[in-house]
Amino acid sequence: MIKAERIRIYDVARVAGVSVATASKALNDTGRMTEETRRRVKDTAAALGFRPNAMARALTGQRSFTVGLLTNDTYGRFTLPVMAGISEALVDEGVSVFLCGIEDDPALGKVHVDAMLDKQVDGIIATGKRVDRSLPVDLSQLPVPVVYAFTQGPKDAVTLVSDDGQGAREATERLLKSGRRRLAHITGPASFASVVERAAAFQEVAGADAPVLNGTWSEAWGHEAVAQLWGGKGPYPDAVFCGNDQIARGVVDALRERDVSVPREVSVIGFDNWEIVAAATRPPLTTVDMNLKELGREAGRLILELAKREPVEPGIRKLPCKLVVRQSCGGESAE
Amino acid sequence: MIKAERIRIYDVARVAGVSVATASKALNDTGRMTEETRRRVKDTAAALGFRPNAMARALTGQRSFTVGLLTNDTYGRFTLPVMAGISEALVDEGVSVFLCGIEDDPALGKVHVDAMLDKQVDGIIATGKRVDRSLPVDLSQLPVPVVYAFTQGPKDAVTLVSDDGQGAREATERLLKSGRRRLAHITGPASFASVVERAAAFQEVAGADAPVLNGTWSEAWGHEAVAQLWGGKGPYPDAVFCGNDQIARGVVDALRERDVSVPREVSVIGFDNWEIVAAATRPPLTTVDMNLKELGREAGRLILELAKREPVEPGIRKLPCKLVVRQSCGGESAE
Repeated sequence: MIKAERIRIYDVARVAGVSVATASKALNDTGRMTEETRRRVKDTAAALGFRPNAMARALTGQRSFTVGLLTNDTYGRFTLPVMAGISEALVDEGVSVFLCGIEDDPALGKVHVDAMLDKQVDGIIATGKRVDRSLPVDLSQLPVPVVYAFTQGPKDAVTLVSDDGQGAREATERLLKSGRRRLAHITGPASFASVVERAAAFQEVAGADAPVLNGTWSEAWGHEAVAQLWGGKGPYPDAVFCGNDQIARGVVDALRERDVSVPREVSVIGFDNWEIVAAATRPPLTTVDMNLKELGREAGRLILELAKREPVEPGIRKLPCKLVVRQSCGGESAE
Repeated sequence: MIKAERIRIYDVARVAGVSVATASKALNDTGRMTEETRRRVKDTAAALGFRPNAMARALTGQRSFTVGLLTNDTYGRFTLPVMAGISEALVDEGVSVFLCGIEDDPALGKVHVDAMLDKQVDGIIATGKRVDRSLPVDLSQLPVPVVYAFTQGPKDAVTLVSDDGQGAREATERLLKSGRRRLAHITGPASFASVVERAAAFQEVAGADAPVLNGTWSEAWGHEAVAQLWGGKGPYPDAVFCGNDQIARGVVDALRERDVSVPREVSVIGFDNWEIVAAATRPPLTTVDMNLKELGREAGRLILELAKREPVEPGIRKLPCKLVVRQSCGGESAE
């Protein structure tokens, strides 16, 4: 294996005909020199393929242009859109995002956090698989700023979550507006804060007596819930708002097998906009998108501000969800 | 935000009552000193929460205990199991894996590779979304070792791929062994090397006249292919081997809607063992698992050997797939 020669600042200085100190200042946009000298140093550095050593730079207390992303969502369901958003927000600043996965093992988590700190990341964004659980590592005393996105942060931290209540309200209002009157909500386990929040918003709009059925986050539960709701002699629901897309897919399939037409007789709306499930459902699912990519973008913007030592107000920021209209709720596309 | 005080080696040396040089040697397991001194330094370091600065360590040419993972699989479908395997292989060595996502933009890719090199990673593992495409960045001249896993590497690189031919053969043999005789293969676009390899293995076992139908990687294509195969007057297939789990799910659903019983009348086997699809299919899918986690583990072991400058034979290594037996192929579970 051929080792690429590493170009050092000494080489840049020599070729540009300046001292190392001047070369360094020129590249860091500090110090006093003519614009021509600064330009010559920069051009020389570019021509030689000089890469300012991020480690040496970090050792002097400057930014390292890397942000660490820590997650325990090993399935990637929520983390990958968040990561895509962070990358989008940071790429123009020349900042790279490094994702490190931790399981629910605190000791292991500490090893990886230490590794990130050793690499002098400019900041750490913590993310996870649910907003009402925190990661198994304490990030509150780190020497770098931390932003929490789609995971629980400590009080006084900067935390970003999706506004599940607003998303659920919007979905329910859509069903009412399209003329549906007998609404039901089929959702996940009540031990999830998001389940409670979505159900409360649903009943706020649909009425306190509109049924909420709790089960698991699965297609099988969608089938079972339909069997329960359509098991008696009616009247049956004319609209079902589901806690996630897997449940919604089970509901749509179960209704088809009962010869109940979606969306003609029953409207169905899911939650998550998990493409692989939502788009493959027949008919494709109308569903609430938590806008995780935008949440990631915002996390990227905030960690950058913190890294630049700009003031950022702590607290929980709720970012709006958006209803993605396909065909399962009936009618016209997007609002 | 409170900044944690950084403990330096000077502090360790002072508290342990030795020189900085001795403290450094003690922690690096080099130099000569009594075992008692070495132990005292290490205990002191541990008690103070001293974290040897990876950057300073890397600047002296030692290992940084970080491996970079580069991917253009932004969906994470293939990359996350690979990453989980790498992490498993490296965690006991105290090595962290940092994932960096690149899109298909070479300029952007270079920024991220440079960031990894700046952090002095001990090696880079490249992975992607298909084995017959390479990443949009040239990694062949880097100053650190590179292993390619589930993406195309240059000649003479160390490359790991799943043995799709063996996987397809095993699935087809399973169908024959269970007494099926009229086998069909419904798969993805022939522009994928894996499609060609799986189809060839299928026909090698099932016979050159066994039909192969190419389409898209979707449930919709599974439905359409069933309509084609069951559209005429028969005889109809009694077994379908599918190119991925999404196609297989479409096939199973389409057969159910035609009142053809899976697995009683027709056996179906998928490919990928994508839990979310395979386990939710009714009946749950028997499917070929590419063992991506094991592929990741092997990539982790190899990059570590390369980082330690141990000799590793270049070339393409094919790792075996494994048939995961659920209910769609009929009968008994695992072999």
